[in-house]
Amino acid sequence: MTETNYYPQYNRNYPLLVKNFMKRPLSLIPDDEAIVYRDDAGKYFRFTWRQWHERTCQLAHALKRLGVENGDKIATMALNHHWHMEAIYATICTGGVSHPINIRLSLDHMGYTITHGEDKILLFDDILLPLVELLYDRIKPVVQKFIYISDKPGLPTTKIEPLYSYEELIKDEPTTYDWPDLHEDTEAVLYYTTGTTGLPKGVLFTNRQIYLHCVHSMALVATVVRMPWDPERPNLPIPMMNVPLFHIHAWGAPFSSVWGCAKIVFPGRFTPESFCELVQNEKVTSAMMVPTMLAMLLEYPDINKWDLSSLLGIAIGGGALPLGLKQKAEKYFPEMRTGSGYGMTETMAGAIASGPRRYMVDWPREEIDKILVKTGIPFMPAIDARVVDVNGNDVPHDNETIGEIILRGHWIMDRYYKDPERSAQAWRDGWFHTGDAAKIDKDHYIIIADRITDVIRSGSEMVPTVLLENLTSNAEFVLEATYVGVPDEKWGEIPMALIKKMPGTPAQEEDILTFLQKEGVDQGKITKWMLPVYVAFVDDVPKTSVGKFDKLAIRKKIDEFKAKAKKVRNI
Amino acid sequence: MTETNYYPQYNRNYPLLVKNFMKRPLSLIPDDEAIVYRDDAGKYFRFTWRQWHERTCQLAHALKRLGVENGDKIATMALNHHWHMEAIYATICTGGVSHPINIRLSLDHMGYTITHGEDKILLFDDILLPLVELLYDRIKPVVQKFIYISDKPGLPTTKIEPLYSYEELIKDEPTTYDWPDLHEDTEAVLYYTTGTTGLPKGVLFTNRQIYLHCVHSMALVATVVRMPWDPERPNLPIPMMNVPLFHIHAWGAPFSSVWGCAKIVFPGRFTPESFCELVQNEKVTSAMMVPTMLAMLLEYPDINKWDLSSLLGIAIGGGALPLGLKQKAEKYFPEMRTGSGYGMTETMAGAIASGPRRYMVDWPREEIDKILVKTGIPFMPAIDARVVDVNGNDVPHDNETIGEIILRGHWIMDRYYKDPERSAQAWRDGWFHTGDAAKIDKDHYIIIADRITDVIRSGSEMVPTVLLENLTSNAEFVLEATYVGVPDEKWGEIPMALIKKMPGTPAQEEDILTFLQKEGVDQGKITKWMLPVYVAFVDDVPKTSVGKFDKLAIRKKIDEFKAKAKKVRNI
Repeated sequence: MTETNYYPQYNRNYPLLVKNFMKRPLSLIPDDEAIVYRDDAGKYFRFTWRQWHERTCQLAHALKRLGVENGDKIATMALNHHWHMEAIYATICTGGVSHPINIRLSLDHMGYTITHGEDKILLFDDILLPLVELLYDRIKPVVQKFIYISDKPGLPTTKIEPLYSYEELIKDEPTTYDWPDLHEDTEAVLYYTTGTTGLPKGVLFTNRQIYLHCVHSMALVATVVRMPWDPERPNLPIPMMNVPLFHIHAWGAPFSSVWGCAKIVFPGRFTPESFCELVQNEKVTSAMMVPTMLAMLLEYPDINKWDLSSLLGIAIGGGALPLGLKQKAEKYFPEMRTGSGYGMTETMAGAIASGPRRYMVDWPREEIDKILVKTGIPFMPAIDARVVDVNGNDVPHDNETIGEIILRGHWIMDRYYKDPERSAQAWRDGWFHTGDAAKIDKDHYIIIADRITDVIRSGSEMVPTVLLENLTSNAEFVLEATYVGVPDEKWGEIPMALIKKMPGTPAQEEDILTFLQKEGVDQGKITKWMLPVYVAFVDDVPKTSVGKFDKLAIRKKIDEFKAKAKKVRNI
Repeated sequence: MTETNYYPQYNRNYPLLVKNFMKRPLSLIPDDEAIVYRDDAGKYFRFTWRQWHERTCQLAHALKRLGVENGDKIATMALNHHWHMEAIYATICTGGVSHPINIRLSLDHMGYTITHGEDKILLFDDILLPLVELLYDRIKPVVQKFIYISDKPGLPTTKIEPLYSYEELIKDEPTTYDWPDLHEDTEAVLYYTTGTTGLPKGVLFTNRQIYLHCVHSMALVATVVRMPWDPERPNLPIPMMNVPLFHIHAWGAPFSSVWGCAKIVFPGRFTPESFCELVQNEKVTSAMMVPTMLAMLLEYPDINKWDLSSLLGIAIGGGALPLGLKQKAEKYFPEMRTGSGYGMTETMAGAIASGPRRYMVDWPREEIDKILVKTGIPFMPAIDARVVDVNGNDVPHDNETIGEIILRGHWIMDRYYKDPERSAQAWRDGWFHTGDAAKIDKDHYIIIADRITDVIRSGSEMVPTVLLENLTSNAEFVLEATYVGVPDEKWGEIPMALIKKMPGTPAQEEDILTFLQKEGVDQGKITKWMLPVYVAFVDDVPKTSVGKFDKLAIRKKIDEFKAKAKKVRNI
């Protein structure tokens, strides 16, 4: 027997592949319902695991017939539904790269991600035809074939070509597929950041990265400390996938749901009414939401008409979970729990999440609620996180000192696609720099404070501008307030306030300082060195297209603003 | 920026290492109790995670000082206690290979595993000193240094040398260690099979294999279907480790307990009394047992003196869980559940385990109980299992046809250590052949029938001898019965019964056939082709040293037995 008689690929080096996820439901419960999709018109589509897999195999054959080769990028412009899940699995499991396009980006940015990604085939929803037509001239040099997703027969009259009907393409294909044994480092998905400060950046993840995220997420569920008031876990989890599949992998749900053999409920897109109808009809046990979705749901006037008692958990991401919103939701749904987490495109899905420690099991509920709205702790041992100051040293766990969150671990991206410069900015000294500013409390929870680019770096300290802005805007005479660092030889940066006053107020620049001293420093909310040195009254504060303060634009005109400003204190 | 500026080792290829397990408890709950050990004399030892880790770091430094290099094998002869856990982690995490020795093997076999394993250092318990002295002359050419584990100061008078005191060795060493970033394929542990049919066989597993077993086991906990009568899961799991650490990694508990930040309770060795005392004192929530331990516990006359209400789950392995024992246990502990699993040294820990499917959630409890005593389903997607006939084809799921269980997946061994021939026998056509015979029922559960070496291969069918033996021994006139295959040109093998009759019975060979026809075939328990063709009355049935029928010895004298036999039917 020689070395070549061994089979490391079936034991020590058995590959971590996305295709393996499908084995569990297919062999355990092939005839159970796998996917329920309710479209915007209220029509339901239902598939068993066997049926869904057969359609996925058929699509895989069709893609091969259309000339797809290993490594080719296959884009989707689609809502959350069975076709989208089929496209993702058929692409990844044949060795292609799935690229779900963020259909909320600007036309320019959407076109950029398709051409920069070199997407060879684009699958799109019938309702998105007008959008694709607008993009067509820009993307046709790259995209070789288009596939039209619709439950209605036939193709529309359009300039887009060549255009194939999804259902026509797959209907005569074989219903099994011999999924190849890929190397686990084979790239599987391409996502783009939303690009709030420039062009979107591409991020690739491998089969291994997706697999390890999925299995670790499941394992962490098993280790959650259960508080005495927590409901029993459901006998059969039935998750609803509200977060778009194009948004950081819908936090990994397309993979963990298949692994967990959970019936997946797709709402197309989120509305309070369709959400409630699906929870009641399908006995949904968990959902994922951004905070605004939860707020919309609680404000929905007809909420009491529905039986939502099956709902046991809502995972919140995409923004901080306000304590008030959490408590309001749990009062409304006594059997339901919400918790927050943190992730970004560059971290594939969640990298940090909240949860109590073992020694907290006797703590009162009010204290635990405060814990659960913190950003949380990293997904150890898979993800390592640190919060470091400008010199790269860990900040003290004092709930005060601000630093930047840096990460490493299995599902952190290795680089920006075709962008070595920004890759090198992000990955330094063996750590991925998130650009998010945070502090750490004595229980070692990370709490996000700001984007690091918005932080003012004063001496070795970081001043979180969001905190100052919220505080300042409480002043009666202030309409809008933002903060920015003014370059300073000694301190690096010193804080300047840009204030748009209420019409007709007689307030002076010094009044800002007085207000912050009284309402901020004296109350222990901020420290003295965070106070602005300069205050500039302005007619307008520059904003981005989505209404956020445009710090980049402000920094570009910093001399102009400083010229208008009054120095209100010495440092 | 060039390729060398990327950090794949911190993202895509972040290694799967045992050292990472320690990160969770050390950063989440360093000052919580980590390990409680009660020795045979009833003395308790307690350590926090920080304390346990400091001692582990100290041992790592001491081992390096003693000259341990990467890949060196470090053996332990020890009960289940904190020293043993320290030795395992210090060895693996510095790049060595931990070899826990099965102290229940014969002296010959123990000596063989130490010399064959080339163990460089041997750590052993004070109470095992006489055993090590008996082994000394045999192992001293290999073992360079000995470490004496005891809570009492000083060293005994002994011929063993050089001998170091564990506590003396570590006491002045630094309490931190910069655990190296090993490659994930670095070998971590060496185990030996019990060698019931020859010399023990060595099996090595890598860091990656241990890591992936651990994370998958945890993930599977999260996907278990919860039946309506199942108790809530505990707020804080507190497992007791009864299964020896030298027995297939105590089913992975040394790793999953650290990952799960669970307080670990070590009983030294199992007795009903120490078990009950520890459950009551430490509020143990789960335990692992072989069926005989559970039976001993239920027969323990003082069981009612203890408060065992914290105990919610007992995992059963190392033998089939009889339905009656399961039901008796759950009647006694209404809040507790037992379930069975299957693994062997070659599969590191569990590879198959029982559990209900989603569509069974409405089934009555009696039916689910029958499911939970089946061998189970493989740990998909990490482990693939098939049951195949002699031609390598999958057996039908008819709850009848016998085949051999074959496996592949992350934590199946790749080969027997320094034994290419037996490796090639076990790993054929990309599958590991377990040597266990089983059938599959219509719900796709695997049910172990026999050792494959005991099965009679008749035509393309496999005859499970255990079934025939149990049935035959029910006959009044039979004292002992065993079955073996007689070589046959046409059928391959045909079944022969070896019967030791009750003294004084007038029964004839044909009476065996008549009995089996009436009590077996007519009752649907066996099929006609399983009936013996030959019956031999014998004075004694050859047995092994542990009292099992010695099929190997029988097969060696098959002609002699056949000469004595009477042909009772034609085929």
